[in-house]
Amino acid sequence: MAENVNTDINLDEYPHINKGLAGIVAFTTNKSFIDGQKGELIYAGYDIDTLAEKASFEEVCFLLWNDRLPNQSELDELNTKLQNSRSLPEPVLTYLKSTSKNAEPMAVLRTAISMLGDFHEVQADSSEEFRINKAISITAKMPTIIAAFDRSRNDKNIVEPLDEKSTAYNFLYMLNDEEPGEQAEKTMDLCLILHAEHGMNASTFTNRAICSTESDMYSSVTGAIGALKGPLHGGANQQVMNMLLDIDEKDADPVEYVKGRLERKEKVMGFGHRVYKTMDPRARILRSMSKKLSEETGHKELNKWSEAILRTMKDEKDIDPNVDFFSATVYYSMGIKPDLFTCIFSMSRVSGWTGHYIEQAENNRLVRPRALFIGDKHRDWVPLEER
Amino acid sequence: MAENVNTDINLDEYPHINKGLAGIVAFTTNKSFIDGQKGELIYAGYDIDTLAEKASFEEVCFLLWNDRLPNQSELDELNTKLQNSRSLPEPVLTYLKSTSKNAEPMAVLRTAISMLGDFHEVQADSSEEFRINKAISITAKMPTIIAAFDRSRNDKNIVEPLDEKSTAYNFLYMLNDEEPGEQAEKTMDLCLILHAEHGMNASTFTNRAICSTESDMYSSVTGAIGALKGPLHGGANQQVMNMLLDIDEKDADPVEYVKGRLERKEKVMGFGHRVYKTMDPRARILRSMSKKLSEETGHKELNKWSEAILRTMKDEKDIDPNVDFFSATVYYSMGIKPDLFTCIFSMSRVSGWTGHYIEQAENNRLVRPRALFIGDKHRDWVPLEER
Ligand SMILES: CC(C)(COP(=O)(O)OP(=O)(O)OC[C@H]1O[C@@H](n2cnc3c(N)ncnc32)[C@H](O)[C@@H]1OP(=O)(O)O)[C@@H](O)C(=O)NCCC(=O)NCCS
Ligand SMILES: CC(C)(COP(=O)(O)OP(=O)(O)OC[C@H]1O[C@@H](n2cnc3c(N)ncnc32)[C@H](O)[C@@H]1OP(=O)(O)O)[C@@H](O)C(=O)NCCC(=O)NCCS
Repeated sequence: MAENVNTDINLDEYPHINKGLAGIVAFTTNKSFIDGQKGELIYAGYDIDTLAEKASFEEVCFLLWNDRLPNQSELDELNTKLQNSRSLPEPVLTYLKSTSKNAEPMAVLRTAISMLGDFHEVQADSSEEFRINKAISITAKMPTIIAAFDRSRNDKNIVEPLDEKSTAYNFLYMLNDEEPGEQAEKTMDLCLILHAEHGMNASTFTNRAICSTESDMYSSVTGAIGALKGPLHGGANQQVMNMLLDIDEKDADPVEYVKGRLERKEKVMGFGHRVYKTMDPRARILRSMSKKLSEETGHKELNKWSEAILRTMKDEKDIDPNVDFFSATVYYSMGIKPDLFTCIFSMSRVSGWTGHYIEQAENNRLVRPRALFIGDKHRDWVPLEER
Repeated sequence: MAENVNTDINLDEYPHINKGLAGIVAFTTNKSFIDGQKGELIYAGYDIDTLAEKASFEEVCFLLWNDRLPNQSELDELNTKLQNSRSLPEPVLTYLKSTSKNAEPMAVLRTAISMLGDFHEVQADSSEEFRINKAISITAKMPTIIAAFDRSRNDKNIVEPLDEKSTAYNFLYMLNDEEPGEQAEKTMDLCLILHAEHGMNASTFTNRAICSTESDMYSSVTGAIGALKGPLHGGANQQVMNMLLDIDEKDADPVEYVKGRLERKEKVMGFGHRVYKTMDPRARILRSMSKKLSEETGHKELNKWSEAILRTMKDEKDIDPNVDFFSATVYYSMGIKPDLFTCIFSMSRVSGWTGHYIEQAENNRLVRPRALFIGDKHRDWVPLEER
């Protein structure tokens, strides 16, 4: 403990400390609703199961930016705008090509999004239309950044974005320099839908806190990427995969492996959630996708291990998997490298972040909580020579 | 209002919404204490007036990272480390030289700090020592980034950092390619001390929220810069100067000018604070500096206008000036361009941000509040053709 802590302080006499702000209601929102008891998730009115079955990612983007579904011409217009906004300014491409090949993809994404602010209007006006167009511009460029950096670090040619096709199709095409099959496009689209929005999670909240100073959208999305990167948040999907690969490499028994982690009081990534006290509905959908895909692609053992880990966590700790647990094996079965998993999460969640930015900007108050000072006060100054 | 808002919702029946998280205690801290009624500010035990009178910025950095003052050899060691960490990796310099000359300096700072993560160890270990060294490395490089971009956008040679002298001296030297006088160094050092730390302000809070996902320090500082940039937060100092320059240009009466803003329900930048309900003690110190400097540098009218605005705000709205009001005229009198003001704020506040990062990492819980969903639920899906 630090030297200057005032040990006379009895924390019980002080205002309640809302550690991690658990349960504190910070905003009203139209963007999503989570019923953590029932395991329900709703985006702007629509159940996640309905959206997973019927919507496209682009429809979900429209929904999160406008709080309603688009009609045909509005969807066409949005698709065209997204397709026409995919290219990157030359200096951003130069950065992606020339930065360290060992850089973390999430860090590179954070830098590249931040850099976009140098080449686009930042705060030209404060209309909703301006903000939605900004959201479109940023959302359209995320896949291009991720694919360009991944190819460049592997000394492969960078593939220019298409000015047609869906976000999912175009991303897989740029990543692999190969037209994706219908099934792969569909799977990616579904993953994008499932990760788009999720209430006041840490990155969305960070994004709203930044917006609340009336800062611009590049700032808020950049900050949100930094938050999502953390292993307790979006970074968990990469950690899940690392765990499964570690089990494989060590030829370990997955049940014993997980029990060992729990005994050592280490967290098992991909499990637990602040809000859900039952199975996350997204985990439910991804679980069946993961089963199907791992069978089809000859990664059957991954699914077997995952199910064994799931049972062990339930038996030992009564903790359910979250969205990151099965998304890891889904992406892996699609041939995507683990350190890109969290980038794909960002590529989707940017729709929710920017939706919340638009909402916050329309009904803003500076986010500024308090902290309880537990140190000494009015200490006497001791000259340097006497310390 | 959005189409899907459920107008049956009576917000009074719902959990209290802590808009802007006003009054919510989110953490315990050793870093600083604000008494908003008395107008007191304490950094890790020491009154701001004491620090302003006796400390150097580097001593304040040590204090914020270690919760105690350094002895001579510890301070020497810190100074050496800071001096040796000032240079930037080549690709960051390349970015600063080649990006748009019209880019906002705060945006460029955000990108450059983010980019540093590609060239330095990000999460090698999780010891306090590792974190303090990271804090030193980032703090040392902020002035270099700001000066290099400012010179480059003005087609001037970039000045290499010195491996000696104080942060304040070195910054002014790199900015102007000229050794600063003793008075200028002292003024800059004092400004750095006054802006170093200030409880759960929006950028520090953003930084802690990002840290709470176990993300790295580049992510948290990058996010914090994005938050500080907003005009309701650090961006206010630049806005204050723009207001004074606008008064000058229009040959306006400052009292009428401010009254006009208030009548139009526009905010007057540099006034008001979530926590202080009296004069901010930093504003008090900066006020006398501003008076002295503007007289010395022949900007007497700036001080006269500032005092008139202060009186008008007090009379009309009973609102006091905050730290940004007089820092604006202080920087301006030192010949610094208004759009660098918020960067100088960052250069100082990075010490507080990183101090809070260290504190958060040692006693962490994921920051994840809630939002109250006010939309409809379980809406029926309407096929695209029928919308
Ligand atoms: C998501 C998470 C940060 C939620 O945090 P939280 O609401 O603050 O929950 P807590 O950390 O207070 O956890 C409550 C209890 O469950 C335990 N727990 C929670 N998640 C756990 C996990 N993944 N593995 C093992 N134990 C876990 C905690 O250790 C704690 O036990 P204790 O009461 O004995 O100390 C947390 O569950 C976690 O770290 N999960 C792993 C990371 C992850 O998958 N994140 C992605 C979220 S989408
Ligand atoms: C700092 C600030 C964001 C604090 O916000 P807050 O705690 O949410 O305070 P509020 O916005 O609720 O203000 C309370 C009242 O004072 C008024 N007010 C606050 N600051 C004002 C200002 N600078 N000019 C005019 N009116 C102001 C508000 O309009 C509000 O009046 P109302 O009750 O009639 O609506 C706010 O004072 C502000 O915007 N100041 C200008 C920007 C600035 O200087 N920021 C730097 C802070 S270090």
